[in-house]
Amino acid sequence: METEVRFLKVPRVKNPVLIEGLGGAGHVGKLASEHLVKEMKAERFADLYSPHFLHHVLVERDGSVRLPRASFFWARVNGKDLIIVSGEGQVTSPEGQYEMVEKILEVAEKLEVRRIFALGGYPTGRQTEGKPKVVAIATDRELLKEGKGYLIPGEKDFGPILVGATGLLLGLGRTRGIKGTCLLGETHGAFVDHRSTQSVLEALEEMLGIKIDTSVLEERAREVERMVSKLRKEFERRELAEGAEEREEPWYIR
Amino acid sequence: METEVRFLKVPRVKNPVLIEGLGGAGHVGKLASEHLVKEMKAERFADLYSPHFLHHVLVERDGSVRLPRASFFWARVNGKDLIIVSGEGQVTSPEGQYEMVEKILEVAEKLEVRRIFALGGYPTGRQTEGKPKVVAIATDRELLKEGKGYLIPGEKDFGPILVGATGLLLGLGRTRGIKGTCLLGETHGAFVDHRSTQSVLEALEEMLGIKIDTSVLEERAREVERMVSKLRKEFERRELAEGAEEREEPWYIR
Amino acid sequence: METEVRFLKVPRVKNPVLIEGLGGAGHVGKLASEHLVKEMKAERFADLYSPHFLHHVLVERDGSVRLPRASFFWARVNGKDLIIVSGEGQVTSPEGQYEMVEKILEVAEKLEVRRIFALGGYPTGRQTEGKPKVVAIATDRELLKEGKGYLIPGEKDFGPILVGATGLLLGLGRTRGIKGTCLLGETHGAFVDHRSTQSVLEALEEMLGIKIDTSVLEERAREVERMVSKLRKEFERRELAEGAEEREEPWYIR
Amino acid sequence: METEVRFLKVPRVKNPVLIEGLGGAGHVGKLASEHLVKEMKAERFADLYSPHFLHHVLVERDGSVRLPRASFFWARVNGKDLIIVSGEGQVTSPEGQYEMVEKILEVAEKLEVRRIFALGGYPTGRQTEGKPKVVAIATDRELLKEGKGYLIPGEKDFGPILVGATGLLLGLGRTRGIKGTCLLGETHGAFVDHRSTQSVLEALEEMLGIKIDTSVLEERAREVERMVSKLRKEFERRELAEGAEEREEPWYIR
Repeated sequence: METEVRFLKVPRVKNPVLIEGLGGAGHVGKLASEHLVKEMKAERFADLYSPHFLHHVLVERDGSVRLPRASFFWARVNGKDLIIVSGEGQVTSPEGQYEMVEKILEVAEKLEVRRIFALGGYPTGRQTEGKPKVVAIATDRELLKEGKGYLIPGEKDFGPILVGATGLLLGLGRTRGIKGTCLLGETHGAFVDHRSTQSVLEALEEMLGIKIDTSVLEERAREVERMVSKLRKEFERRELAEGAEEREEPWYIR
Repeated sequence: METEVRFLKVPRVKNPVLIEGLGGAGHVGKLASEHLVKEMKAERFADLYSPHFLHHVLVERDGSVRLPRASFFWARVNGKDLIIVSGEGQVTSPEGQYEMVEKILEVAEKLEVRRIFALGGYPTGRQTEGKPKVVAIATDRELLKEGKGYLIPGEKDFGPILVGATGLLLGLGRTRGIKGTCLLGETHGAFVDHRSTQSVLEALEEMLGIKIDTSVLEERAREVERMVSKLRKEFERRELAEGAEEREEPWYIR
Repeated sequence: METEVRFLKVPRVKNPVLIEGLGGAGHVGKLASEHLVKEMKAERFADLYSPHFLHHVLVERDGSVRLPRASFFWARVNGKDLIIVSGEGQVTSPEGQYEMVEKILEVAEKLEVRRIFALGGYPTGRQTEGKPKVVAIATDRELLKEGKGYLIPGEKDFGPILVGATGLLLGLGRTRGIKGTCLLGETHGAFVDHRSTQSVLEALEEMLGIKIDTSVLEERAREVERMVSKLRKEFERRELAEGAEEREEPWYIR
Repeated sequence: METEVRFLKVPRVKNPVLIEGLGGAGHVGKLASEHLVKEMKAERFADLYSPHFLHHVLVERDGSVRLPRASFFWARVNGKDLIIVSGEGQVTSPEGQYEMVEKILEVAEKLEVRRIFALGGYPTGRQTEGKPKVVAIATDRELLKEGKGYLIPGEKDFGPILVGATGLLLGLGRTRGIKGTCLLGETHGAFVDHRSTQSVLEALEEMLGIKIDTSVLEERAREVERMVSKLRKEFERRELAEGAEEREEPWYIR
């Protein structure tokens, strides 16, 4: 078996933009693409299956099963065609990752996608202070002038390597002549980060010139923060009681 | 070399049901399929060989060797055609697992199988109290109404992921339009479980409307239990003698 | 790149016997095939190269390099055609092992080989007392009646699994209808074992009805034994001096 | 996706020499090929991409990304055509390494390369005293008479195995009838070694009969030495102060 894309339908699109959000630190890419699919009421039109995904199936609460898959969704917003790629992004080998990204790019070429946005997080290993920043990386440095106020690696200490589907989509896209921008939200990396997802979607909003309602993410972020704050207080109380002082951030949701 | 199926004979069957039992926790699937082959006096008609099995051969007590393989057996019971898949199920990579399951499904399509039952165990990590329960999972939620009294994941705390051939058979079968039910017997997971196998076969009995004699399994279960009970007493005697108290379940056969 | 066999020449042979000795415990298979090539003045006629060998080259003492390879040699002894396979046998994956053995069998079919002898060692983890015994395993139990006095697994406690090229050659050969016998010499497993190699070659001698001079192996075995004995005495002297007693077999050549 | 070479241009060359420097101990091969590209003002004419490279992209300081790749450069020096291979050399599997080297050799055959020089380091695990020596290895022992004064493995204690692209290029090249010499500079192995790179380039200079200015490497080597010397003094001062004496070479740049 090879990685393959099964079409339920081929949408009629014009100069579509492809938005990928399959994973990454803090689940930022995944949360962002899932949010877009819901908000835009996007329609699923194709599924990607791969023997390079882990050999398991996902069991729903009603007892039905399905294979892991990444799906393609389509939405038209303000006259703009958006293709959103969401779902499974973890593969078991570098070769599998290359194969999967190539298949996504084949769909992109079939639909004449001229522009890619790849969404993800960049892990800092510490709690973010204030609004999470967004780092932009692109196939061409000209693209980086599009948004304003986004960090580019040259301005800040950022590793010279970007691992996984998000980076490969740009790298392999570039060899096919498809321009792409990667938007990475600052995140601790050890917990699901709705605030970083908000920052990334706001950057996308500005670059695409469309409106994305992120109030649900705001709510979810507050819930998580309340929970974390409660856990932290509880933890500090206990530590005080026991006189323990050595640990620093053990209460994050991993 | 590719994974391949070699036919000794192509059985003439009508609307056959395919029953897979290749492995899983507590060896439940394996025990169940081997029991069915024996009880039904099923005839072996094809063998699946794969370079994704471990690179070894099995040596019989008479000194002859053979490759690891999964085999297809055929039996007609009460006018019903059953295809039983039994044998080697362990492969060395996720890609190999996909390839193997695809080959089983190719045989299923060739024989016009319309229904799959995949048998296995679900590990709880603790000794089962009373009769082992059976969890049912299926390609379609309608199938779950067939049996009565089986747990479905939504009713109980069951992990959202099912690893290995058993789950993939349903997942990949679903993409080919073959309906399937997975029956998983509750089991500790650390020892060979004949009682859990009995429960699974009783569920299969009810769903298929055929009779399966499981008295041999009952006997084997009692033997294992006597042995375990003896070992446990011996162990407790020694522990008492030595005053040791820290370990809890170290006497299981792994 | 695929595993491939490059012929330097195709020997004209009649009902040849193929003898494989690529590795195994105590280097028994390797020593045996190398000894046969030398003693029989066998001619190298083909080389097998594989991307599944480790990605290195072998450097000779004169500074020249070559790829790892397994080679095919041909000798005619008492009117019998022998094909000897000797050289690199270690591959980096189970799939690679299957591929390599399939290529050897393709050569065997091309030359109309009707019989295979696969040579190796079986590790006991302890020093062999007396003459090393030989265990025989075969594709058909009839073949086991050929030699006399060889152990078969049913007579002695022998694991039910045989890993690597030697076993696969029989297992895959069997599916092609080529009969084969595996001769495994009893060996400690932790050092190069010339005595076990002698035993295996004597078994082969008897089964093939040819004469194999093993006096060189006898000499090498004595050299190793003298060295080991000297090391042992030296070691015991030091242990006595230091009063140390805890270690048991640390002087083996690994 | 397969490993593939994308040509930007096919240079017109006559009896070119291919010089590979992709990695190796002390980064000697990499430093050497990068130095040659700069000094010779070589023109990049083809890129090799591979799914066997790690699944990441490289981010430049200006925020643009590109895939890991090995590149082919062309320069004409004193009427001699040189093809230099420089860039990414690390792959994730032995099979991938074979595939990559085969692709380099396909380019070599296309351009009718009759001679290969593969550059690297051989690690000694200790600081080099005096000028780093160069070990020469070749597909044919005749080639080893070309340079003068280079060590060959038979003269010195050198391991019988050479791992990676550099060795494979000779080994696989030999099976295609392309002659090659490998020049390995003596190096500690734990830090980037400009002096060893100088030695290797001087050996290449002599063998090719061309002039290579290595003064920049000389400067870089002195910088590193000054830094190391400073660190060492600082370290000794502290050790003296603390009376510590156990560690020996912990200040190398890894």
